[in-house]
Amino acid sequence: MIPRYSRPVMTAIWAPENRYRIWFEIEALACEAMAKYDFIPKQSAKNIRENGDKAMVKFNADDVAKIDAIEAKVRHDVIAFLTWLAENIGEDSRFVHMGMTSSDVLDTCLSVQLTQAADILLEDLDRVLEALKNRAFEHKYTLTIGRSHAIHAEPVTFGLKLAGYYAEFARNKTRLLQAREEIATCAISGAVGTYAHIDPRIESYVAEKLGLTAEPVSTQVIPRDRHAAFFAALGVIASSIERLAIEIRHLQRSEVREAEEYFHPEQKGSSAMPHKRNPVLTENLTGLARIVRSHVVPAMENVALWHERDISHSSVERMICPDGTITLDFALNRLASVIEKLVVYPDRMQENIESLGGVVHSGEVLLALARAGLSREQSYRIVQRSAMETWTKLGKPEGKSFRENLENDPEITGRIDSSILDKAMDGSMHVQNLDHIYQNVFGETGPKPKN
Amino acid sequence: MIPRYSRPVMTAIWAPENRYRIWFEIEALACEAMAKYDFIPKQSAKNIRENGDKAMVKFNADDVAKIDAIEAKVRHDVIAFLTWLAENIGEDSRFVHMGMTSSDVLDTCLSVQLTQAADILLEDLDRVLEALKNRAFEHKYTLTIGRSHAIHAEPVTFGLKLAGYYAEFARNKTRLLQAREEIATCAISGAVGTYAHIDPRIESYVAEKLGLTAEPVSTQVIPRDRHAAFFAALGVIASSIERLAIEIRHLQRSEVREAEEYFHPEQKGSSAMPHKRNPVLTENLTGLARIVRSHVVPAMENVALWHERDISHSSVERMICPDGTITLDFALNRLASVIEKLVVYPDRMQENIESLGGVVHSGEVLLALARAGLSREQSYRIVQRSAMETWTKLGKPEGKSFRENLENDPEITGRIDSSILDKAMDGSMHVQNLDHIYQNVFGETGPKPKN
Amino acid sequence: MIPRYSRPVMTAIWAPENRYRIWFEIEALACEAMAKYDFIPKQSAKNIRENGDKAMVKFNADDVAKIDAIEAKVRHDVIAFLTWLAENIGEDSRFVHMGMTSSDVLDTCLSVQLTQAADILLEDLDRVLEALKNRAFEHKYTLTIGRSHAIHAEPVTFGLKLAGYYAEFARNKTRLLQAREEIATCAISGAVGTYAHIDPRIESYVAEKLGLTAEPVSTQVIPRDRHAAFFAALGVIASSIERLAIEIRHLQRSEVREAEEYFHPEQKGSSAMPHKRNPVLTENLTGLARIVRSHVVPAMENVALWHERDISHSSVERMICPDGTITLDFALNRLASVIEKLVVYPDRMQENIESLGGVVHSGEVLLALARAGLSREQSYRIVQRSAMETWTKLGKPEGKSFRENLENDPEITGRIDSSILDKAMDGSMHVQNLDHIYQNVFGETGPKPKN
Amino acid sequence: MIPRYSRPVMTAIWAPENRYRIWFEIEALACEAMAKYDFIPKQSAKNIRENGDKAMVKFNADDVAKIDAIEAKVRHDVIAFLTWLAENIGEDSRFVHMGMTSSDVLDTCLSVQLTQAADILLEDLDRVLEALKNRAFEHKYTLTIGRSHAIHAEPVTFGLKLAGYYAEFARNKTRLLQAREEIATCAISGAVGTYAHIDPRIESYVAEKLGLTAEPVSTQVIPRDRHAAFFAALGVIASSIERLAIEIRHLQRSEVREAEEYFHPEQKGSSAMPHKRNPVLTENLTGLARIVRSHVVPAMENVALWHERDISHSSVERMICPDGTITLDFALNRLASVIEKLVVYPDRMQENIESLGGVVHSGEVLLALARAGLSREQSYRIVQRSAMETWTKLGKPEGKSFRENLENDPEITGRIDSSILDKAMDGSMHVQNLDHIYQNVFGETGPKPKN
Repeated sequence: MIPRYSRPVMTAIWAPENRYRIWFEIEALACEAMAKYDFIPKQSAKNIRENGDKAMVKFNADDVAKIDAIEAKVRHDVIAFLTWLAENIGEDSRFVHMGMTSSDVLDTCLSVQLTQAADILLEDLDRVLEALKNRAFEHKYTLTIGRSHAIHAEPVTFGLKLAGYYAEFARNKTRLLQAREEIATCAISGAVGTYAHIDPRIESYVAEKLGLTAEPVSTQVIPRDRHAAFFAALGVIASSIERLAIEIRHLQRSEVREAEEYFHPEQKGSSAMPHKRNPVLTENLTGLARIVRSHVVPAMENVALWHERDISHSSVERMICPDGTITLDFALNRLASVIEKLVVYPDRMQENIESLGGVVHSGEVLLALARAGLSREQSYRIVQRSAMETWTKLGKPEGKSFRENLENDPEITGRIDSSILDKAMDGSMHVQNLDHIYQNVFGETGPKPKN
Repeated sequence: MIPRYSRPVMTAIWAPENRYRIWFEIEALACEAMAKYDFIPKQSAKNIRENGDKAMVKFNADDVAKIDAIEAKVRHDVIAFLTWLAENIGEDSRFVHMGMTSSDVLDTCLSVQLTQAADILLEDLDRVLEALKNRAFEHKYTLTIGRSHAIHAEPVTFGLKLAGYYAEFARNKTRLLQAREEIATCAISGAVGTYAHIDPRIESYVAEKLGLTAEPVSTQVIPRDRHAAFFAALGVIASSIERLAIEIRHLQRSEVREAEEYFHPEQKGSSAMPHKRNPVLTENLTGLARIVRSHVVPAMENVALWHERDISHSSVERMICPDGTITLDFALNRLASVIEKLVVYPDRMQENIESLGGVVHSGEVLLALARAGLSREQSYRIVQRSAMETWTKLGKPEGKSFRENLENDPEITGRIDSSILDKAMDGSMHVQNLDHIYQNVFGETGPKPKN
Repeated sequence: MIPRYSRPVMTAIWAPENRYRIWFEIEALACEAMAKYDFIPKQSAKNIRENGDKAMVKFNADDVAKIDAIEAKVRHDVIAFLTWLAENIGEDSRFVHMGMTSSDVLDTCLSVQLTQAADILLEDLDRVLEALKNRAFEHKYTLTIGRSHAIHAEPVTFGLKLAGYYAEFARNKTRLLQAREEIATCAISGAVGTYAHIDPRIESYVAEKLGLTAEPVSTQVIPRDRHAAFFAALGVIASSIERLAIEIRHLQRSEVREAEEYFHPEQKGSSAMPHKRNPVLTENLTGLARIVRSHVVPAMENVALWHERDISHSSVERMICPDGTITLDFALNRLASVIEKLVVYPDRMQENIESLGGVVHSGEVLLALARAGLSREQSYRIVQRSAMETWTKLGKPEGKSFRENLENDPEITGRIDSSILDKAMDGSMHVQNLDHIYQNVFGETGPKPKN
Repeated sequence: MIPRYSRPVMTAIWAPENRYRIWFEIEALACEAMAKYDFIPKQSAKNIRENGDKAMVKFNADDVAKIDAIEAKVRHDVIAFLTWLAENIGEDSRFVHMGMTSSDVLDTCLSVQLTQAADILLEDLDRVLEALKNRAFEHKYTLTIGRSHAIHAEPVTFGLKLAGYYAEFARNKTRLLQAREEIATCAISGAVGTYAHIDPRIESYVAEKLGLTAEPVSTQVIPRDRHAAFFAALGVIASSIERLAIEIRHLQRSEVREAEEYFHPEQKGSSAMPHKRNPVLTENLTGLARIVRSHVVPAMENVALWHERDISHSSVERMICPDGTITLDFALNRLASVIEKLVVYPDRMQENIESLGGVVHSGEVLLALARAGLSREQSYRIVQRSAMETWTKLGKPEGKSFRENLENDPEITGRIDSSILDKAMDGSMHVQNLDHIYQNVFGETGPKPKN
């Protein structure tokens, strides 16, 4: 909603011009259907379509202002539009909106806008997915430390990390497709939804032409559980954005420096400290995720309208529909751009793997000892001894690497030979099933190792 | 989580006994798979299964206490269980959990529990749906006033109201099925999810046996966007419960009295006021909906775990998984019961329709005048005059019904005759498309009108 | 944020012009302080103030555009402003911002804006309070039915209802004053808040001049628990608005009709149904309350910034600070207007009290029988018998009033005489302690009964 | 609510025994007041008190079961208790609860429980504050790098970090005191709050004895904006816990290692990886914070009860009152313990400061050049050149420290001499205002530097 975090393509959906065009389309289609089923003269429907189209083609800010001026008097947005429309259509305008209620136009229009927005968001997700896939393939074999609890665990690859995010955003695409289906319905059923004054075939016709389905039962309004489900899906997607943004912020922190947001040569990180390169884009994404997520609860509070409808949902939707879709669209594009341009430092990743003196391989040594016949308890005691010796003296003059400490331990040297330790520490086992995972995630195994 | 709002069938899913049984099942299945693919001796897997099954069959609170005692020492729940299990299995226990990480057991177990919970919730929804359908058919032609903004609009039928709720809960069933699919995955991929120490075929085998799918890529944990989507679905369902609960609370209010919760003959509404019959069940449901909805945001905040995993989600899930499913299960059953036993007052509904002197038929009279050749503006002015005359003198000695006022208006009497007014006020148009709606909602048109 | 729900006075606070004026004021005051404590030449500070004031007096949209153009190049909003400012100040501009960091300006400016906003909101609350008091005094003795569970309980007065809301909004004023104090702090402490490059006395000086207090310890940013507390207070106020809005919506519903929003003589409630008068303003307030409440969680999620600061809070605040204060300001003014013009129907209130045949007096009859010596159980059984007889035959030809049924009951007639029943049903006990309550709430007892 | 995250002292407040004791106390005090003002015989009040006290002293689980059994019949918790009480009191029991309504007991009891809970939470905060102060004094001069955006900025001290948290938790204490005041009210005003059947002096008496204030105007219930404000305060406190927990998690990550949670010598971080020491306590706190924060919105949704009251708030409060206070109590104590035992590594902090080759001092060098007469732009260009040279070659053989690069730059050496660079890099300016800050935060300057 604020220009700083908006892309014009999404903002346009929520502009008055787009709304009025959709309103006219709904009214014109309804007239076509009424003509088709002989409720109004065929020529009248034709006139309405032709004169209306002519007016809408050149529709601009002046027309919006005219409609606003009428609304200021009649205090009803749909009547204001119909009044303006009548001036452009002439006498046949008396057939426009016949037997319909304002919500028929408003709610069906909202469905069209939300599906338009969803279609853009689906493209955004595709861009994010493509960026993730490209970088995941590029770094399929770039070893990096896996971290649980932000503590070094065992090596993974940077490509594998990205594959995980790819799978998550692929799920998000499925969710968004389901969410799109939720709100892609059309209601033209008149006051309190009984079709008392309008034939159900009108609704079916309009729905089909707009690419929507007819709402099975509406109560003047399209039921708001649909919109709640839609915003819930946006909230989940936003949370995934947050996860990836936080990952990058971690990787860029001064002590990690494994990856960083692209930094323009002439960019200044700080007016006071020339050395600064801050992950400001992903920090921004973290905040935008909070905003999109905050729309979920009010959308759910909107469900329990009173009886056939009250209008409390309206003010909420006037804010969260544009804000939610515009912000998420902006965030997804910013995210895609961050991934596409992300500067990755494989050397630094390797340094970090080694920075704890090799203790990150303790798990495999443990299994090697077990395979050599020791009980799990014995193995654990022995390996832990070397690991803790390494850990506590890390960076000190008397410090030794995990490998050295293991090789100095007579309980080990008698049991497993050097080649087994070589194997345990060469990282090969951490990549041995990448093809399996890539096949599952991408439907193809991706590049082979370079060696 | 509190007994007052719990049903034993759902509570049992979250009891330690169920959790440990699932843990054993996962370990035993993994051993079977390891034997199948020759990672461990076939006889060992057989022994593990047989001895384990024997122990689990008689598993009870004493065993829970024993495991708790071990955990108090080792401070690790999975190790505590494995230690207890080893005592029951003997030497072959060294093959149990081989190459696995605790999360493989914990997260897969959570998936099993959530799918078990989802299955109960699906049954609950079926009960609600059946109750709604039965009452919707019973009252297909029970006229009642439709209200927008809580102001009388035009008549609908009580069955139509219920049909709307049926359609909403049918959507909720679809959402829950999708949510169930979201969390029905299995991860057995070892530390940081690389399958470095375990073959992916083990995971596939266990997944299939448990009725789950293998997680395409896990990072030690099953990604939490899945759980966020699950709780979002529960939040939408809760919001629908709230909508129906509030509808009933409205209908029962003293001035409306169109329906009320079943009131036991010996029940006392108030210690001080013998005349009270309060809609306490639906008020309770309104509160329970708030609770279930409040789980959505923390579930979404759980998504952004650090790197390959942190454990911040765990404490959240220990609370919201039982609380959310138990509360929603209780609420859906209470709701079904309320609908099943709801006392409906058709006479009172008819009285309310008529209570505004017939002005609720103003829309149809308006159209009748338009059909008789008047412009929309003229018609509106004429009808509004009679409607407001009726409205402002409602209940006063000099007050006249809308019909009387219309018939006293020379601008009307000259144009439309009495039979048209009869028709406009007989309510028939409000039921003329019920078959269409019922067919859409229920797949059948339901009963025919009685006479 | 959207014009429909905005008042210019609040929108102006968030306009770029106001922000830049505050930025200059902060910089100018800092220079004054630096001069005072001999860090920079006194004449330079004087020049900065004079030239800057001159520029700010005529500051307009063109200047905003110029600054925007600079920002497009340097990608830093504060540097862009300082560059623009330097052009207006000349050589002494090198003393501006010396030893400061951008957050010193940004966060202190936000404090000023939020206190400005809070001051308007405090005036809004005063308007609401005054309206509530006036109407509470006007209707101190207007009897109306009190409802628990939306079921008739015992009579209260309409003034008493409003007194309850008055007390609630008075509490909200206290909360807003506390919230204002939370965010009325100033930070000028330089990078990471150590005052390494700027003397703490500068901060104290600026704070005092701006009517703020100096932040005891900042970490480059003013800590965000303060802003979280601020938005939490707005969320509580919004919830109170919702409560009053829902009360009015209930009172206006067709079956109750005890009060209604002012309806302009030429207003049209519905294009299709001339009889409609909908409580659209209070429905709108219900939705706006959801929006303001939705800002609480993201404001709380903003608290946990990383280390000395990250910038994830910024995008959130760019949205919720204007949206929250503008929406709440609009809502409070709309609410005040609704109360001021509310149309109250005392006759209808009286009719509703009597509509249940007098059973609402059952509690007092119960006590009367108890005073006459019957046990509580006996009394209850007797009174309930008459109440239920009345209730179940309400509106039917054979129906009798509660009074008639009581007088026909030999168990009663023998024990209490007619004057006691008169007393129990005259409503006097329900107003006997109004003076006590009014004194507590308003500090005065208000008007005396008329007769 | 779940034992794992509960302390008995807080759980006891929400046990049935405590609730019934408070109920009795309220009833007994009300009787004393009624006797004092001659509404009932003085001897009766005395008997009620004496017999009741006798029963409550020995009150245990058996009594709870008896009351439960009665409730199962009468379906009303307060009546069940009164029935049980009557058996213990005898004939005078007919004076108990006279003119009161159940909510008078229930809501006043909840106020007592919430103030008891608040008092424990206040003690918890004191423990956190003391721990923070002790460690802040201990590490007042322990230099560590300040980080904005998780990127090294300029040095701060570890004590200063903790001082910031101290100030935040001191604010939280103020907020909790305000929140305690919000809910410390008593209502004894009868059905719909009119005091129709009970004298206001009874309420005043009971309130005073219970350490509460009398609610100025209640509507059968104590208004729920009070409880919303209470839970909002808990939500802010939880967010502060999250901030500190995340700080510690950052400091413990493998690449930072500046501080870590105490790790018991015999503790095992991971069954598979002997080198692991995970910050599991602070990760747990992060999750618990989400839970407490999730109660804020339902508490706010509870405000808008219908008319004089509905009971939708009740089910919400049955969950969030115990869960919120128990969880926050547990979290605060866990947090205090983490701080008390936190293992701090000053050497590692120093290493990290130096790890970027000294570029963290770029800001001060910039100012030194400016003081030496260069323009800001010139200075920036020169310093940035050395900083980027240092940064990009960090850790490489050809890499030089920031100091070396500066000293090799002829544009610098001609202008500022070595002693100025010494000064810029000795860290003294970062501690020069610690006394000022400590005085503001703690009311005392704390220890002097050791040297």
